[in-house]
Amino acid sequence: MEPGVITAVLDRAAGAHGLRYAPDPASAALSTIGGNIATNAGGLRCAKYGVTRDSVLGLEAVLADGTVVGTGRRTVKGVTGYDLTALLTGSEGTLAVITSATVRLRPVPVATATLAAFFDSFEAAAEASYAIGRAGIEPALAELVDGPVLHAIDPALRERGAALLLVQCDGAGAAAEAEVVARVLAPSATAVETTTDPVEAESLLAARRLALPALERLGRPLIEDIAVPRSRLAEAVREIRAISARHDVPVFTIAHAADGNLHPIIVVDRSLPGLPDAAWEAAGEIFALALRLGGTLTGEHGVGVLKRQWVADELGPAAHALQRRIKRAFDPRGVLNPGKCL
Amino acid sequence: MEPGVITAVLDRAAGAHGLRYAPDPASAALSTIGGNIATNAGGLRCAKYGVTRDSVLGLEAVLADGTVVGTGRRTVKGVTGYDLTALLTGSEGTLAVITSATVRLRPVPVATATLAAFFDSFEAAAEASYAIGRAGIEPALAELVDGPVLHAIDPALRERGAALLLVQCDGAGAAAEAEVVARVLAPSATAVETTTDPVEAESLLAARRLALPALERLGRPLIEDIAVPRSRLAEAVREIRAISARHDVPVFTIAHAADGNLHPIIVVDRSLPGLPDAAWEAAGEIFALALRLGGTLTGEHGVGVLKRQWVADELGPAAHALQRRIKRAFDPRGVLNPGKCL
Ligand SMILES: Cc1cc2nc3c(=O)[nH]c(=O)nc-3n(C[C@H](O)[C@H](O)[C@H](O)COP(=O)(O)OP(=O)(O)OC[C@H]3O[C@@H](n4cnc5c(N)ncnc54)[C@H](O)[C@@H]3O)c2cc1C
Ligand SMILES: Cc1cc2nc3c(=O)[nH]c(=O)nc-3n(C[C@H](O)[C@H](O)[C@H](O)COP(=O)(O)OP(=O)(O)OC[C@H]3O[C@@H](n4cnc5c(N)ncnc54)[C@H](O)[C@@H]3O)c2cc1C
Repeated sequence: MEPGVITAVLDRAAGAHGLRYAPDPASAALSTIGGNIATNAGGLRCAKYGVTRDSVLGLEAVLADGTVVGTGRRTVKGVTGYDLTALLTGSEGTLAVITSATVRLRPVPVATATLAAFFDSFEAAAEASYAIGRAGIEPALAELVDGPVLHAIDPALRERGAALLLVQCDGAGAAAEAEVVARVLAPSATAVETTTDPVEAESLLAARRLALPALERLGRPLIEDIAVPRSRLAEAVREIRAISARHDVPVFTIAHAADGNLHPIIVVDRSLPGLPDAAWEAAGEIFALALRLGGTLTGEHGVGVLKRQWVADELGPAAHALQRRIKRAFDPRGVLNPGKCL
Repeated sequence: MEPGVITAVLDRAAGAHGLRYAPDPASAALSTIGGNIATNAGGLRCAKYGVTRDSVLGLEAVLADGTVVGTGRRTVKGVTGYDLTALLTGSEGTLAVITSATVRLRPVPVATATLAAFFDSFEAAAEASYAIGRAGIEPALAELVDGPVLHAIDPALRERGAALLLVQCDGAGAAAEAEVVARVLAPSATAVETTTDPVEAESLLAARRLALPALERLGRPLIEDIAVPRSRLAEAVREIRAISARHDVPVFTIAHAADGNLHPIIVVDRSLPGLPDAAWEAAGEIFALALRLGGTLTGEHGVGVLKRQWVADELGPAAHALQRRIKRAFDPRGVLNPGKCL
């Protein structure tokens, strides 16, 4: 497949054969497969199906000197040579230009069951999401939405609870799994709804999908993207609230709970020219928090230009130097995406 | 964790916390986590849970010049910098010496359901295994055992069919999934048995586990390890039989069906000093077959020393040269595992 194919178009084409392309970044209607691979994009479904890397079997790429290389294979498994497919995935165009990709498609699940649960606090919702995994359930998606985001979407939604947890199970065992999830959530949730109807499911998921547009009405959203070990999710949520209070910067949080991937979103007044100092400081403390909890600066969006200054902190000097040596092995003259990533 | 921990010991320690280490190479009682990572080992459960790479979150490693680097993270998701964890996984000790690993543990499944189905031919069993995936089921394991192997284990087993397909579903939806699998297998199988009892399940799986010891009684087994796209599994099986007949070399085949990973096993007379020419030729044709079907030389065992001569054929000259440049970026003087892999 060519790298310029739009993610949603690929998924639709697969649908005609009863298959689907699992990774579903929120940008699917706009983003390309090449861009998804270059950034190793995530999405809602990666709770169960993994990130883009887990769906890429092989690549064709052009190196800085014009050489064309093929990596990977058309099989699900294989260990001949170093894993160049994984190395190029997420390299943000700094190692090679991807010109073709072979991806893994999966059957459309035969059934899905979707749950929406409200909680009195975001911590309680985060704890409950962790308990789902501990009960042996790997849901297809598990999304957390905090109270301020619910309020931005619709004040009536905020009145139902201080946090919303959305969970979807899929496959032949979906109903049985959803029953276990409902049992796990019951003690701490204030309300739990389950549906196996796709239209009702979409209306439950709408809250999550409307989060970003709702925040855009309030100002310019600066979307952070930290990830922490799942056992530290509730702690991260608590600390982010403290950072927000300390700097008097409103932080809205949504999270891919099953991955420990949080998107704390700082919304900035559109009339301001740049980012106020307080917002920079809050963002810096959020990055430091992620590293302190054993987490990472970027769960799925990539380093890009903005987070470059933080990379060495996360990697440490030896790994950072090694990454630069790899960059030189691919692109000795530094012509590919200069200034990105490293 | 230190790299010298035995795979089965880790799994047992995890069990005390209701968790398990998903990768389960048949060598688990002997192999180390370091060796598993260095070879990106597979196993039965990787049908659903992936290979070793999918369970490794982060590594500490010593480079050829003595520098210690940390790679990856303790979170499930993260995209800071190039994916050095994936690059080191499967590199067979040629890039760095792994000194510590952080791995992903998963909850022990709350339930399992195991099916054993017999077929009139190995092709029919291979087709049926492919149909399971097409029906949207991702079993925890799906193992194929051909007639000659069944005979070697126990002639009574061979009388029950010309091929055996073992399937295990796990998790809260195990029973529901097993029902779908039974429905998919029914039209082509001559007999299907299902059990949710762990002891009965182990006795069903015993046939697969006894395969290698049974072949060792016949001679010296040379285990091949090709992988093909799953849709070509039945075709691969047919061609392997033709190769076996053409060279008059007995080939016994077991397969991790869900991954398209076949282990054609050539059994050589122990009284012979080396490998007879006919066996070499058959092995060569099996490799060529894998590549022709869009597959790979090694699904999980790695290149090692034996398959080095074939690597360039699979990778192509440009990727092969790039792999050598990566090797040099890590180990300019070539001191790590010289002669392996590339
Ligand atoms: C509204 C919105 C929602 C989003 N939601 C998510 C989400 O849910 N999850 C998530 O993970 N991300 C998300 N993102 C980030 C975005 O999905 C990813 O950055 C996306 O994968 C980029 O794809 P693109 O085609 O837009 O690439 P671009 O933005 O055009 O490029 C991204 C990078 O990839 C490089 N690149 C592009 N094509 C190639 C190629 N063929 N070869 C080599 N390098 C290449 C570019 O040089 C650049 O460095 C979102 C972004 C937006 C705007
Ligand atoms: C009976 C048997 C059954 C098997 N079944 C399977 C199976 O089902 N699936 C499968 O995928 N494989 C299987 N294998 C292959 C075997 O599991 C793998 O090769 C295993 O992962 C090797 O582990 P080990 O500790 O024995 O490593 P070794 O054999 O000691 O080493 C293997 C390679 O890894 C390197 N290495 C070891 N430790 C490190 C380290 N700390 N840092 C860097 N490099 C290191 C070594 O230099 C060597 O190149 C089997 C092997 C046997 C003998």
